Amino acid sequence: MTQTTDATALDTVLAYHQAWTSGDIDRAMTMVADDIVCRAPGEELNGKEAYRDYLAAFAPMLTGLTDVGNLADGDHVALFYYPHTAVTSTAAAAEHFTVRDDLITESVLVFDRLSFAPPNQR
Amino acid sequence: MTQTTDATALDTVLAYHQAWTSGDIDRAMTMVADDIVCRAPGEELNGKEAYRDYLAAFAPMLTGLTDVGNLADGDHVALFYYPHTAVTSTAAAAEHFTVRDDLITESVLVFDRLSFAPPNQR
Repeated sequence: MTQTTDATALDTVLAYHQAWTSGDIDRAMTMVADDIVCRAPGEELNGKEAYRDYLAAFAPMLTGLTDVGNLADGDHVALFYYPHTAVTSTAAAAEHFTVRDDLITESVLVFDRLSFAPPNQR
Repeated sequence: MTQTTDATALDTVLAYHQAWTSGDIDRAMTMVADDIVCRAPGEELNGKEAYRDYLAAFAPMLTGLTDVGNLADGDHVALFYYPHTAVTSTAAAAEHFTVRDDLITESVLVFDRLSFAPPNQR
């Protein structure tokens, strides 16, 4: 007897998160739906290409990460963490994901743009 | 036989959230520990008085709210929502709470300060 086990929403999101935070944008994008909608600070990103460009612009700035917490409920997953960059390691980021058929279809991304801006741009 | 049912962490946080978002700061503060530590954008708030002042400064600006999601896991609760103010209703806020003995002891509060600033201050 064969049993198929689908990945949980949390599995999908953690694999996505692990991939992009280690710089592997290609792998991260295999967990993202073509029609992803992401509400990010100051802009809405529609579709995988826009989302990929956004993530690829930030990922090289990441020097480390402190985890705060991961919570899951059905198709929804929340991640809270402190991204480390050259300018801060104490400004939290939060993401609320919706996962359907093992792909991320929606993301609400929250962070404080001022905290991540270079000091001379604040 | 008497059975005592403790409030869950989610019950505590939702009661807190309902209270402050309806303008009842006094009631909200009954769900907050004296030694709360809150990491907010650009500052850390230590103790109930500092936290109360911070919340009391923002609460009058709230004109409404759109819920995104609530997730709970043991002592931890995450809330995501769009606060409505005079300047925005599409900038998300996220809170990650730690609850001990029915009181909120830690909060990581995430929002984009630029999105909530008056247009002439951006």
